[in-house]
Amino acid sequence: MNRFKVLIVLLFCSVMAMAQGSPKDNGDKWETAASPNSKVVVRFGIDNGRPYYTVQYGTKDVIKKSFLGLELAKSKHASKGMEETNLMDGFELTQTIKTSHDDTWKPVWGETDEIRNHYNEMAVSLWQAKSNRNIKIRFRIYDDGVGFRYEFPQQKDLNYFVIKEEHTQFAMAGDHKAWWIPGDYDTQEQETQESRLSEIRSRFHDAVNWDNSSVAVFSETGVQTALQMKSNDGLYINIHEAACINYPTMHLNLDDKNMVFESWLTPDATGLKGYMQTPCNTPWRTILVSDDARDMLSSHLILNLNEPCKIKDTSWIHPTKYVGVWWEMIVGKSSWNYTDEFPSVQLGITDYNKAKPNGKHGATTANVKKYIDFAAENGIDQVLVEGWNIGWEDWFGHSKDYVFDFVTPYPDFDIDYLNKYAHEKGVKLMMHHETSSSTQNYERHLEAAFNLMNKYGYDAVKTGYVGDIIPRGDHHFSQSTNNHYMHVVEEAAKHHIMVNAHEAVRPTGLCRTYPNMVGNESARGTEYEAFGGSRPDHTVILPFTRLQGGPMDYTPGILETQLKTWSNNQNYVHTTLVGQLALYLTMYSPLQMVADLPENYKKYNDAFQFIKDVPCDWSRSIYLEAEPADYITVARQDKNSNDWYIGGKCDENGHKSVLKLDFLDKDYVYDCTIYADAKNADYKNNPKAYKITHKKVKKGDVLKLTMAPGGGFAISLEVRWNC
Amino acid sequence: MNRFKVLIVLLFCSVMAMAQGSPKDNGDKWETAASPNSKVVVRFGIDNGRPYYTVQYGTKDVIKKSFLGLELAKSKHASKGMEETNLMDGFELTQTIKTSHDDTWKPVWGETDEIRNHYNEMAVSLWQAKSNRNIKIRFRIYDDGVGFRYEFPQQKDLNYFVIKEEHTQFAMAGDHKAWWIPGDYDTQEQETQESRLSEIRSRFHDAVNWDNSSVAVFSETGVQTALQMKSNDGLYINIHEAACINYPTMHLNLDDKNMVFESWLTPDATGLKGYMQTPCNTPWRTILVSDDARDMLSSHLILNLNEPCKIKDTSWIHPTKYVGVWWEMIVGKSSWNYTDEFPSVQLGITDYNKAKPNGKHGATTANVKKYIDFAAENGIDQVLVEGWNIGWEDWFGHSKDYVFDFVTPYPDFDIDYLNKYAHEKGVKLMMHHETSSSTQNYERHLEAAFNLMNKYGYDAVKTGYVGDIIPRGDHHFSQSTNNHYMHVVEEAAKHHIMVNAHEAVRPTGLCRTYPNMVGNESARGTEYEAFGGSRPDHTVILPFTRLQGGPMDYTPGILETQLKTWSNNQNYVHTTLVGQLALYLTMYSPLQMVADLPENYKKYNDAFQFIKDVPCDWSRSIYLEAEPADYITVARQDKNSNDWYIGGKCDENGHKSVLKLDFLDKDYVYDCTIYADAKNADYKNNPKAYKITHKKVKKGDVLKLTMAPGGGFAISLEVRWNC
Repeated sequence: MNRFKVLIVLLFCSVMAMAQGSPKDNGDKWETAASPNSKVVVRFGIDNGRPYYTVQYGTKDVIKKSFLGLELAKSKHASKGMEETNLMDGFELTQTIKTSHDDTWKPVWGETDEIRNHYNEMAVSLWQAKSNRNIKIRFRIYDDGVGFRYEFPQQKDLNYFVIKEEHTQFAMAGDHKAWWIPGDYDTQEQETQESRLSEIRSRFHDAVNWDNSSVAVFSETGVQTALQMKSNDGLYINIHEAACINYPTMHLNLDDKNMVFESWLTPDATGLKGYMQTPCNTPWRTILVSDDARDMLSSHLILNLNEPCKIKDTSWIHPTKYVGVWWEMIVGKSSWNYTDEFPSVQLGITDYNKAKPNGKHGATTANVKKYIDFAAENGIDQVLVEGWNIGWEDWFGHSKDYVFDFVTPYPDFDIDYLNKYAHEKGVKLMMHHETSSSTQNYERHLEAAFNLMNKYGYDAVKTGYVGDIIPRGDHHFSQSTNNHYMHVVEEAAKHHIMVNAHEAVRPTGLCRTYPNMVGNESARGTEYEAFGGSRPDHTVILPFTRLQGGPMDYTPGILETQLKTWSNNQNYVHTTLVGQLALYLTMYSPLQMVADLPENYKKYNDAFQFIKDVPCDWSRSIYLEAEPADYITVARQDKNSNDWYIGGKCDENGHKSVLKLDFLDKDYVYDCTIYADAKNADYKNNPKAYKITHKKVKKGDVLKLTMAPGGGFAISLEVRWNC
Repeated sequence: MNRFKVLIVLLFCSVMAMAQGSPKDNGDKWETAASPNSKVVVRFGIDNGRPYYTVQYGTKDVIKKSFLGLELAKSKHASKGMEETNLMDGFELTQTIKTSHDDTWKPVWGETDEIRNHYNEMAVSLWQAKSNRNIKIRFRIYDDGVGFRYEFPQQKDLNYFVIKEEHTQFAMAGDHKAWWIPGDYDTQEQETQESRLSEIRSRFHDAVNWDNSSVAVFSETGVQTALQMKSNDGLYINIHEAACINYPTMHLNLDDKNMVFESWLTPDATGLKGYMQTPCNTPWRTILVSDDARDMLSSHLILNLNEPCKIKDTSWIHPTKYVGVWWEMIVGKSSWNYTDEFPSVQLGITDYNKAKPNGKHGATTANVKKYIDFAAENGIDQVLVEGWNIGWEDWFGHSKDYVFDFVTPYPDFDIDYLNKYAHEKGVKLMMHHETSSSTQNYERHLEAAFNLMNKYGYDAVKTGYVGDIIPRGDHHFSQSTNNHYMHVVEEAAKHHIMVNAHEAVRPTGLCRTYPNMVGNESARGTEYEAFGGSRPDHTVILPFTRLQGGPMDYTPGILETQLKTWSNNQNYVHTTLVGQLALYLTMYSPLQMVADLPENYKKYNDAFQFIKDVPCDWSRSIYLEAEPADYITVARQDKNSNDWYIGGKCDENGHKSVLKLDFLDKDYVYDCTIYADAKNADYKNNPKAYKITHKKVKKGDVLKLTMAPGGGFAISLEVRWNC
């Protein structure tokens, strides 16, 4: 919608050819560079030919001496004669270039309408004599952390190489508290563990949900990023990556004797990890650091380390609120499949017109109409329909290649009529492409599938990657599969289609470059509330971890938290009703589902008003309070008005908030509507007790609020009049 | 061009429910069935629950008692509870159905214009009590051999399963002489070995060309099919497969103590072999047998076991003779790549317009025009151009995924002009798609590539699969890669494009079903004559082995057999000049290259006349004499006239032929032109000594001809007048 604009202010640029560093024992040479506010300091050095770095925050160690390097495959694909020359040691520092950068750019959508990109940079050039190869390591030092990456210029002796492993170390300064999930090549949907680093190994096995559709753990101390930690001396440290393109996703493997993490990349079917052609680079390895937890949430470091938008015309990309024929299937009341008659299906051969419907298919014309009507009545933009296309009878667990064709509706889904009906009411349907992880099959049908979307006027697709990847033996987060996700995003952009990929790789800020990537799942979403539940602190951890790389399609808004009231599912949502409202603010996304059933919203119509009101695109966001796994409170200003919204969410212990409204405009008075947990509310025993109050507020006022166990609050502040 | 027509004459059909067989020790039950002429007899039985079969030819054993069965993967993809139940034993025979079949069908193109499909069939139904699974084994018994396959009906307890290995045995009756190449998951381009079965192990290592672009051997007694053998008592036996669709390609592994071959399928990257969904079946396992070697060559058993043509309108499919910008690159005089400046290329980024041409690029507008002129002058249909599209600078050996885009010409190849120029002269260009085995990348660009072909009027493509397959870890002949080749053929058919795939899987008669598969390489082609050479007997082995499954784009016609006469290549072709002419008959293909350079044909214009004259579509073919690795002589009648052509080719020992022309039409006299090796001709020292003689002949005349060492002869018999 908005074209972004980049203001580049190059403050100063100092080139130091053949940096001297400070002479030390064993010929150690080193260079330092600091963040604009001087608080974050990176040292880079060479120790007996091995590159290393450290990071300090003020006087505190964030990353102790940590070595850098890459192990190359002894592969016939490596350049001739270079098969066994790792990029690990034997390096000399040949040049250090230090520059500064300060500009501001406008995202197409986001938590803020402008983002400042302000860093000091140190790029070191290294020469490995035995191979005659040159590499660079580039550090960008921000006030809230550091990003660095390896760069491989094109050169005579380095054109193609294969990475066996990247050995980037992150040496911790202590046995930090950490919020982690098991490192896994195929799933990110485990529940977060809170433990000391030293406790990861003993807790690892129980931390794995072995029943997940695709599990591939690799080490008892392997964890995923973004990894949020907190040190004993009060530092919040977060390790992740930015701009993971044409490269495998990084995990961290902990040496728990020395508290040193090391990168552990996702392999392909051969066990090798990265196929590289110069000029190229790794993703940025990112380290956020602050003594204020709120800085973990407001940081733009990862977005800033991504490339500017590559899509020229972004006018077709828009934040979207949607309902869907979805939760009723997740809960088990209706089904994706049309019939129960077929033990297996052969697309193009199986005749659905002769099959007996099972009577509980969700994606029927009549049921979809109900959702369209509901969306139209309530100003909701789109209606997702899952299970509309043939193939669901045997879609999972059979390593079936040709599992869906993405274009053929079930007999009871009138695609033409429903799109027309929706469009007449100002609503769009949202497409659904479950791939069953047969990426090969999806690519074969991609163009036809997108053409169908264009024909009927869909402009957004939710994709899914449940189960093991086909090509068989490959993994969800390998270089090749990451390239598949990017291929889909790029092809979608050509068709003016927004993509919301589920079970795809966790994001690394690529939505800056490809803003049609409007959503991802890549973590344990609301669906798990119907599968046994997630802990109440789950949603006050995710913004510190999963959301670092980009928005999540968490699918909030389950106001009827007790599923047995309308289905046979005995599970309940591990938040209060109001807690669900709060998620529209605390779990930022430009794509927000209104996930419950229309009839459930009708039961709580006054609370539903907040979901109707809350925008999903913002001009400002201010994190008012935050502590990982405890609470998060954020105030956000609507991008299209001067209204503000505040959301607070807490864990199982409840939380008391004192909010000073000093961010409001002094020129206005605001109509304030507070959706709060009632006095005895509790996510477990009394989840739907809420209280809605109205008052007038102005800049400087103070609101005192109590979140119930597993609860939260939601506040709308509508501009009423000038003072 | 011709729609085929099937005449089904079901002669008799006998159904025997619950066959009794003959009671034997240990409860063995068996059934027999014989070929229409009763000479080939199959026995099927169950021995202690294990299915087995034997094959006899008259009184001679062809296949001794050989067990049948499949080992299933203990995979999570197998149906629940069935993970460890192999389909190997515990079987009962529940039904035997015997039928007969006799019909005649017309191929779109071929060695004959009609093919009779005459067999007796025995289908046995087997029940495995412990798994409650039913399978069938279907035998079709022809006068020249046997085909059988496993069939898996859809049933409650068998919907999905994964094959770890197929254990189909072929127990030989002796230590036969065999013409074999090493079993290999990725290449078929090894030189054929002639040895006793017992000698395979000791000769295996030296039989592998370890420098091939992709080598993956698996056993020291593993060999490929089609495997031609000859027994001490004079039986010719050939083992291959028919209709390999959605299944991995079979190799044979020899137990060389007992002379028992067993099937050995090609794995994917995980090591597993076949992902099956019922109803389904394996390919046919074929055994040709005769005491006359000519029957190995004239057999239609493999085509007959394939399904009828699935392409409704075949009018756009036509036999084709073509020249190409190719041999000059193979020999090393010109190059596929445009420039030598780029150590590596990034498509879409690398700017070719700024690059310095290397001065020896083959696919220049000027050079292609020369070939177009030559084709037009000599009645040759098409001009293949390799190296026309960007990416050749680093196309091989780097495991590069995005290696070609298949649509962007080099700056010096004017695709628009050249197609117009060719069309004005009645010639078509032939497209070339080298994939570098990045099948994933090819599929991403397939639609655009075919659209480009349609736009400019190409109707045939030569594809190539040099190097290791991407998706990495997969193999050239796995189920998934076989499916890729089929995908390309099917998509090509939608665009009315004929496909000639090089380095793709060896054919199994699929050209009956998909006649736009007009060619394949899948063996050591003429190109090896420029890389060191192939033995002179090579082309009198291939028709017994490689050609069993379908035609080969062998690219004959190198009249200037001594490459150093026009290039720096010191190799020579291991045939005489006349031997090259003979290949147009002995190496049947509807696609025949005229592979030498225009200037070389001008040097031997009188011999070249035969290449201009010889058709590549036939109404009848009669093999006059044949012995594997020694000689082959065949007479063929032009499909579009009453003219006949005869070709004879021999090994390094020469051969004397006495040809009785009793197949000619008694109503005509024929103008006979004989292209023969001159008296002292020899492939090594005097290859280009030839003699052309003209005479009149009629039915019943006898021609006596002498083939030189590595030589042959070629004869055209044009109808001149009625008697």
